[in-house]
Amino acid sequence: MTKTVATLGELMLRLKPAGKLRLRQASGFELCHGGAEANVATSLACFGLNSRFVTALPDHEIGTQALMALRATGIDTGHVLRRDGRMGLYFMEEGADYRSGCVIYDRDNTAFSNLVSADIDWDGVFNGVDWFHISGITPAVCETSRQLAEAAVKEAKARGVHVSIDLNHRERLWNYGVSASDVMPPLVSMADTLIAGRGDCPACLEIEGEGESGSEDWARSLSERVLEAYPNLSRFALTIRTSSSADVHDWQAFLRTGTEAVFSRRYTMSHVVDRVGTGDAFCAGLIYALLDGQSAQDAINFGAAANSLKHSIAGDANQVTAEEVLNLAQTSAFGRLRR
Amino acid sequence: MTKTVATLGELMLRLKPAGKLRLRQASGFELCHGGAEANVATSLACFGLNSRFVTALPDHEIGTQALMALRATGIDTGHVLRRDGRMGLYFMEEGADYRSGCVIYDRDNTAFSNLVSADIDWDGVFNGVDWFHISGITPAVCETSRQLAEAAVKEAKARGVHVSIDLNHRERLWNYGVSASDVMPPLVSMADTLIAGRGDCPACLEIEGEGESGSEDWARSLSERVLEAYPNLSRFALTIRTSSSADVHDWQAFLRTGTEAVFSRRYTMSHVVDRVGTGDAFCAGLIYALLDGQSAQDAINFGAAANSLKHSIAGDANQVTAEEVLNLAQTSAFGRLRR
Amino acid sequence: MTKTVATLGELMLRLKPAGKLRLRQASGFELCHGGAEANVATSLACFGLNSRFVTALPDHEIGTQALMALRATGIDTGHVLRRDGRMGLYFMEEGADYRSGCVIYDRDNTAFSNLVSADIDWDGVFNGVDWFHISGITPAVCETSRQLAEAAVKEAKARGVHVSIDLNHRERLWNYGVSASDVMPPLVSMADTLIAGRGDCPACLEIEGEGESGSEDWARSLSERVLEAYPNLSRFALTIRTSSSADVHDWQAFLRTGTEAVFSRRYTMSHVVDRVGTGDAFCAGLIYALLDGQSAQDAINFGAAANSLKHSIAGDANQVTAEEVLNLAQTSAFGRLRR
Amino acid sequence: MTKTVATLGELMLRLKPAGKLRLRQASGFELCHGGAEANVATSLACFGLNSRFVTALPDHEIGTQALMALRATGIDTGHVLRRDGRMGLYFMEEGADYRSGCVIYDRDNTAFSNLVSADIDWDGVFNGVDWFHISGITPAVCETSRQLAEAAVKEAKARGVHVSIDLNHRERLWNYGVSASDVMPPLVSMADTLIAGRGDCPACLEIEGEGESGSEDWARSLSERVLEAYPNLSRFALTIRTSSSADVHDWQAFLRTGTEAVFSRRYTMSHVVDRVGTGDAFCAGLIYALLDGQSAQDAINFGAAANSLKHSIAGDANQVTAEEVLNLAQTSAFGRLRR
Amino acid sequence: MTKTVATLGELMLRLKPAGKLRLRQASGFELCHGGAEANVATSLACFGLNSRFVTALPDHEIGTQALMALRATGIDTGHVLRRDGRMGLYFMEEGADYRSGCVIYDRDNTAFSNLVSADIDWDGVFNGVDWFHISGITPAVCETSRQLAEAAVKEAKARGVHVSIDLNHRERLWNYGVSASDVMPPLVSMADTLIAGRGDCPACLEIEGEGESGSEDWARSLSERVLEAYPNLSRFALTIRTSSSADVHDWQAFLRTGTEAVFSRRYTMSHVVDRVGTGDAFCAGLIYALLDGQSAQDAINFGAAANSLKHSIAGDANQVTAEEVLNLAQTSAFGRLRR
Amino acid sequence: MTKTVATLGELMLRLKPAGKLRLRQASGFELCHGGAEANVATSLACFGLNSRFVTALPDHEIGTQALMALRATGIDTGHVLRRDGRMGLYFMEEGADYRSGCVIYDRDNTAFSNLVSADIDWDGVFNGVDWFHISGITPAVCETSRQLAEAAVKEAKARGVHVSIDLNHRERLWNYGVSASDVMPPLVSMADTLIAGRGDCPACLEIEGEGESGSEDWARSLSERVLEAYPNLSRFALTIRTSSSADVHDWQAFLRTGTEAVFSRRYTMSHVVDRVGTGDAFCAGLIYALLDGQSAQDAINFGAAANSLKHSIAGDANQVTAEEVLNLAQTSAFGRLRR
Repeated sequence: MTKTVATLGELMLRLKPAGKLRLRQASGFELCHGGAEANVATSLACFGLNSRFVTALPDHEIGTQALMALRATGIDTGHVLRRDGRMGLYFMEEGADYRSGCVIYDRDNTAFSNLVSADIDWDGVFNGVDWFHISGITPAVCETSRQLAEAAVKEAKARGVHVSIDLNHRERLWNYGVSASDVMPPLVSMADTLIAGRGDCPACLEIEGEGESGSEDWARSLSERVLEAYPNLSRFALTIRTSSSADVHDWQAFLRTGTEAVFSRRYTMSHVVDRVGTGDAFCAGLIYALLDGQSAQDAINFGAAANSLKHSIAGDANQVTAEEVLNLAQTSAFGRLRR
Repeated sequence: MTKTVATLGELMLRLKPAGKLRLRQASGFELCHGGAEANVATSLACFGLNSRFVTALPDHEIGTQALMALRATGIDTGHVLRRDGRMGLYFMEEGADYRSGCVIYDRDNTAFSNLVSADIDWDGVFNGVDWFHISGITPAVCETSRQLAEAAVKEAKARGVHVSIDLNHRERLWNYGVSASDVMPPLVSMADTLIAGRGDCPACLEIEGEGESGSEDWARSLSERVLEAYPNLSRFALTIRTSSSADVHDWQAFLRTGTEAVFSRRYTMSHVVDRVGTGDAFCAGLIYALLDGQSAQDAINFGAAANSLKHSIAGDANQVTAEEVLNLAQTSAFGRLRR
Repeated sequence: MTKTVATLGELMLRLKPAGKLRLRQASGFELCHGGAEANVATSLACFGLNSRFVTALPDHEIGTQALMALRATGIDTGHVLRRDGRMGLYFMEEGADYRSGCVIYDRDNTAFSNLVSADIDWDGVFNGVDWFHISGITPAVCETSRQLAEAAVKEAKARGVHVSIDLNHRERLWNYGVSASDVMPPLVSMADTLIAGRGDCPACLEIEGEGESGSEDWARSLSERVLEAYPNLSRFALTIRTSSSADVHDWQAFLRTGTEAVFSRRYTMSHVVDRVGTGDAFCAGLIYALLDGQSAQDAINFGAAANSLKHSIAGDANQVTAEEVLNLAQTSAFGRLRR
Repeated sequence: MTKTVATLGELMLRLKPAGKLRLRQASGFELCHGGAEANVATSLACFGLNSRFVTALPDHEIGTQALMALRATGIDTGHVLRRDGRMGLYFMEEGADYRSGCVIYDRDNTAFSNLVSADIDWDGVFNGVDWFHISGITPAVCETSRQLAEAAVKEAKARGVHVSIDLNHRERLWNYGVSASDVMPPLVSMADTLIAGRGDCPACLEIEGEGESGSEDWARSLSERVLEAYPNLSRFALTIRTSSSADVHDWQAFLRTGTEAVFSRRYTMSHVVDRVGTGDAFCAGLIYALLDGQSAQDAINFGAAANSLKHSIAGDANQVTAEEVLNLAQTSAFGRLRR
Repeated sequence: MTKTVATLGELMLRLKPAGKLRLRQASGFELCHGGAEANVATSLACFGLNSRFVTALPDHEIGTQALMALRATGIDTGHVLRRDGRMGLYFMEEGADYRSGCVIYDRDNTAFSNLVSADIDWDGVFNGVDWFHISGITPAVCETSRQLAEAAVKEAKARGVHVSIDLNHRERLWNYGVSASDVMPPLVSMADTLIAGRGDCPACLEIEGEGESGSEDWARSLSERVLEAYPNLSRFALTIRTSSSADVHDWQAFLRTGTEAVFSRRYTMSHVVDRVGTGDAFCAGLIYALLDGQSAQDAINFGAAANSLKHSIAGDANQVTAEEVLNLAQTSAFGRLRR
Repeated sequence: MTKTVATLGELMLRLKPAGKLRLRQASGFELCHGGAEANVATSLACFGLNSRFVTALPDHEIGTQALMALRATGIDTGHVLRRDGRMGLYFMEEGADYRSGCVIYDRDNTAFSNLVSADIDWDGVFNGVDWFHISGITPAVCETSRQLAEAAVKEAKARGVHVSIDLNHRERLWNYGVSASDVMPPLVSMADTLIAGRGDCPACLEIEGEGESGSEDWARSLSERVLEAYPNLSRFALTIRTSSSADVHDWQAFLRTGTEAVFSRRYTMSHVVDRVGTGDAFCAGLIYALLDGQSAQDAINFGAAANSLKHSIAGDANQVTAEEVLNLAQTSAFGRLRR
């Protein structure tokens, strides 16, 4: 039977100039919608799972536009609330070669940031749900959202739903007087699966790996320490990105379970189309593969292939099928035109 | 010698889908910048006056983009401050035929809305200034901006600068607990020239005209009552719009001074390109003509021609020359291709 | 309780050059999706009803794109099948002033045209359905689709569902050896509500009105004859369009029930944005109003206002809310910018 | 047998901002190619005649682009020379409502302006040609082009080719020290058919009509005087445009031959798409109809319908078929969508 | 004297989203026209040869648009027939990095697919023709087109025209009940020059090379076997592509004549703009060079340089001059801006 | 105190097809403005210096558009004159991979090319100026501009302003009968700082380096010889570009002063966005760093980082902040998304 995953978070309208133009050069914006948990939900819907996304959107045409974008991908939007407040936005400037890209968040006082636990029908949200996913971005937005994130995880656990957290540390958030390392540990101590990028564990959990950051040894030691510190976790996935320019990224993932520690295939993306949401693509890939009953090695490879494909997809979310991911994970013939 | 005009207000980034698409249909946004007082400043700069605009913009690339837009038109931006906070935004859906257009303001917690009088070098702002203009939009934003507007008018008057106020009533603003009719009267009682649209005097000053709204008699009686109630005013201009669809508008203005009461030529715009900022275009036209020493009749005609031309200009501000306005005001041969 | 409407038909990908360019001048195509019954379903979903659309789409990315477009508007796509075959297309050239627009259908051998009754789970399709709508386009495509249309109406009637048929005569279809007047009468004789444009009854039912086509008397006599000929019909709606150029259309509707005969308000659209799908917008408006329990007069007015608004919406389907239609139906102040 | 028409003149690259944007607002330019005689050639090719266009284009990629545009429409480009020199350009700002459009010519020192009679193989050019057309724009460019125009008309006459001249007076040209009234009379005295707009005869031939400009009497008297002054002319066509805004034009034509004087049907274009090249469209229509053997009345009606249609076509040239023109000339049902 | 080449095949309208967007993400399509034999004809026309293309296009505006595209490049379209039936289409999704591109053919029941030998004036088609080229795509479309391809080759041979065939195997075609290896051998046995990609000979001729596919030895052995099996062939060209991602391709060609066996220069394209039509660009380059009388080594180098350049050209056809190809073939200084 | 730099030269309107399209494929042009000295002025304004640009622009809307582009970046345009004459243009075709880009200049008879020394208020131009910069492009345009360049340098020197010259050799200019090696030496003999690309010294000064062009030894010997030949120079900067394709460039700079000879960091741009203006970006970077009091090593590194960043910026001018350049010059972590 098709599995059901729920995620909760803020959906933002992204505004980006065409191509490689700087924000100051823009005479218009391309738009798409994204947000860490929404991206995971979208990718899972494209994989064919039942994917439920919980959020609040403003009760005006810009909110309707966002709702239509969610619906288009097949997400179950039955728990998307319409409320007063702003639409979360972010402006994006795509990097190029030696020039770094940048993101300007514009998410003060949004409809989502005012959403509280009592607004949500938790029984409905978790009805039939196999897995719940949330990222460290939601508690980073404001105190209200932190409480919402905490409530969500508790409500999930109370119903026996498997919980994954992606630490997803963003330095430009966390502006409401607490730090990630105050907030994330209690959340992580309720989770089943933890996902982290290279600098996330030091910043959020104050746990460092041994050896050179990004090395195999470092990954092994870091993962051991995390699972030791959080015995509730049955699984810890670590992603290791090395970028040599805005266009060229090298990427690998690592997965430790109680019994196994496996590295994924390693990909070098030499013509990155859109770097945003690649971490979320990995989360979705990993969740899909695990719900699909794949082995640790297959699952981490599936997640890595999903991440790699996302680098070639414009927009925040990974609009690819599970079959496409599997094909990449299993081939070594790249870039053929199918005709 | 070239005259100098200063205006103060918020500059917003406007986001609009291409053509007649609804917001929900947009796959991108066209952008321009606008705001009532910025529009007046832009139009005056295009007319060739020294035009100074006072505002605060966020200290990031989106603020830089806005600053570049101001500079391009030749505005003196020496008193544009860069501050923390959001860029004011508005989303716009263009109307068509029987479908009304709509504007969604997104101006919570902007850099401008946090600007206070003490941030501003008033001596510098009013150095060499002949005329200061502000609209009823600024005090409608929030209490901080109301205080700023009040301070600005006081500082201008203290330096003997002529002050004009455009009532510019917007029902969707005024959300901070006071009404236009609480706030505007004390401001108007400091002004020299008052400008009002059809419904502005009832809403802001609680003064009604006699007879059918929009009729000649109504305009005459309303203007008499306003000048009676506010003897400080040397001039009262009234604009009368009648729209039969989003594309077809009829427009006329009326000016009463201590000694004269004159109607402008009447224009019927049958293929409106952009209705936003047409009132600001009138204000700029009137200010220009009066500073230019034109008679009341010529000045109101100049303002009306400026308004009429603005209906044919995309974007918020009237990017036309004084010569173009004069040509329209004096001709009855319309629409010839110049080649 | 929210009402549920089902419709069945082909969804096409529409390809149109930008603005007023001719097809031969195009350097690209704008795209949207449409089809008579899909348009009705979309409009009803935008009005807030449960709207179910039954069709077949090709099992490749172009089919997925179409499915995403359906989903975005909130349509229930649970009965959209994915099959081998082409995506139906049409090329559109927008008319302008004295130049007629034109449509080039490209719908040979599509996934939909090969769909047969046995492919469809009729119990599921009609589960909870209050109203079923189909147009004369579906039986005009090919013999297979004619049989499908017939089956659909029979299955609906067998379950006690109210059936409406829009005659929607298209001369460029009906290429498979039968004429509309062969095929439509048996279908109409099973329907409850019939909707027809100016020339539809002569072409499809061989019934003419008396007097000048489009006149009030003509409408009355035609409607009497139709209800006489098809006593199964409880309602007959007639739409009367007069176009003086591609940009200027005049439009009115008429509704006859067993007891009443009412004309709608009359609208003159002087700046048509998109003429396609305006008839479908009327159908959706009428269905909504009738399911909403409105009087014959209110219902025909609601349908006419929906039709009028659609002329201002780009794309095939009427993406407006019921509230917007109601506002237009009840106001005489047109074209104000809401801000 | 299909008739052959030759024309000679400059082809320009036209650069225009999108939609109704002013030149100063442009962030890019749409492009097309045009020029009075090229427009006539293009329209005739679209009508299905053999259409030969003689010009010189620069020998670089921008010239190649222009050549490709000519070829696409089916023009015989065997006598298009490639030479050193600039590509002629013009910038165009579309008018809107009360705002006049404008054209900025940029045609100094172009490849065409340096073309001389000796460069051209006149025998080849006029081989099989039934009609030669040239406009008053070519001799207005520079002395070299004036000589070329004169030579072309002489060479045509020497071979017994019917010659038409469209006076096409442009005040912004004629900058090389002579006036239109110096240059045009000797050219006109060699022509067979003369075509003129409202102000052309006074400006180029110093011949005025009697009565109010544009009136029926005025047209009759003007045409009599022209035919009297230039007995070589077998035909004189006069076009009468009245524009009430950039979007609304009224248009009628008049034709006098030795024996007849007929007015065309009158058209009111209320949503002008592109006003440029409408006079050329009339010339092409008239030439086509006359070569087709139509009566004076039918021919002037055909020309007027061609002119009317061109107002709905973006770009300089009238890309319509002869069948489309005929349909418009013979119908009174406007603006129906063909589907 | 300029040589004349004829080709015969289907011209398709290609529809592609902007940039790297997936088909499902498209909000519009860029368009161009292409097809194997049309691409060869276009490239040869750009090289300056007389290039004649034989096909059938639908008799409506979409066919006219296609005809205009052919004409623009200077192709002789005198043998392009206009017929009932569809325009052949294909949708294209550009690959990126690890994501494969894909093509969705939409060519059922097209005007071309119904074209039969009796429709064609073979004497006219081959009048003055030096070389006839056809690819394996035409016989793959349907039985009618297979017969047409066979007839074309026979008619060419009957008139002593040199015939080249590019095997051009496409797995997604050949859906009418025969396989490439049934159909291609008899065609090849009539040809003079054969061109094949890496997997074409096994699939179409059931001939394999010895050693590792793509190696030098493999190429030598394969070519020997082909020339042995088809002694009618005077020349066999083999192209060897290795792609490491959608953006990075490595390419080399090999040519065996009766007396020589030469490899071309090898190119690595690291930023592919458009991979489609690169094989056709090679065919055109080889044909041009051979008709130009170049040596085997120069000719294969010319073909390889043409192929390499095509990777940098958007659209199906290689719009470059012979001089540009020669420059690349002879230089080792790449990528300088010419100014 | 903020330093002031003045530059003098022609500003051109650049017209470029979208993306990698060839000029002949364009259906529109993207536009920006540029010119060697204008690019330097723009970059310096973006760095925060007072930047004054002296030029002449045509007195029509296209000139106004150009003026607005200058103003937007914060340049002091008080010495931009408006004159009769054309706007300088250039068409640009972006290269791709093995295909070279190309530039077609269109700058005959422009407003700037007719500007003479007497038109300019030199006291005003050099009021408060610390540094004056000009390139070898200005004297290459025509004799009038050569005289203007000479006068400008003399006027600067007469007022004790530091003068830098960028040789900037363009083979396609210098068409008025003199060669760069006639004109540049006397100019260089008045300068303080000289900047040259790889082939500039041989072409303009007839001075060659020893050893392989581009090698370290070559740079050292060339710089020694230049400083020996021109003892007036206090500084000589040399830039060394090696391009392996249109997309991949390698770049390093070298600076020799009286006492030091230092190489910059070396950058490999592997995804070039826009190669135009990268040399100007270096000039601006070097000038900024030197006026900022940086050491020779830091200054050449700052210039090189500025150059490197410009390769990632679309348009002619380097719209980056000094802080961004410094960040790149001091980091080895490239391409991180800032969020």
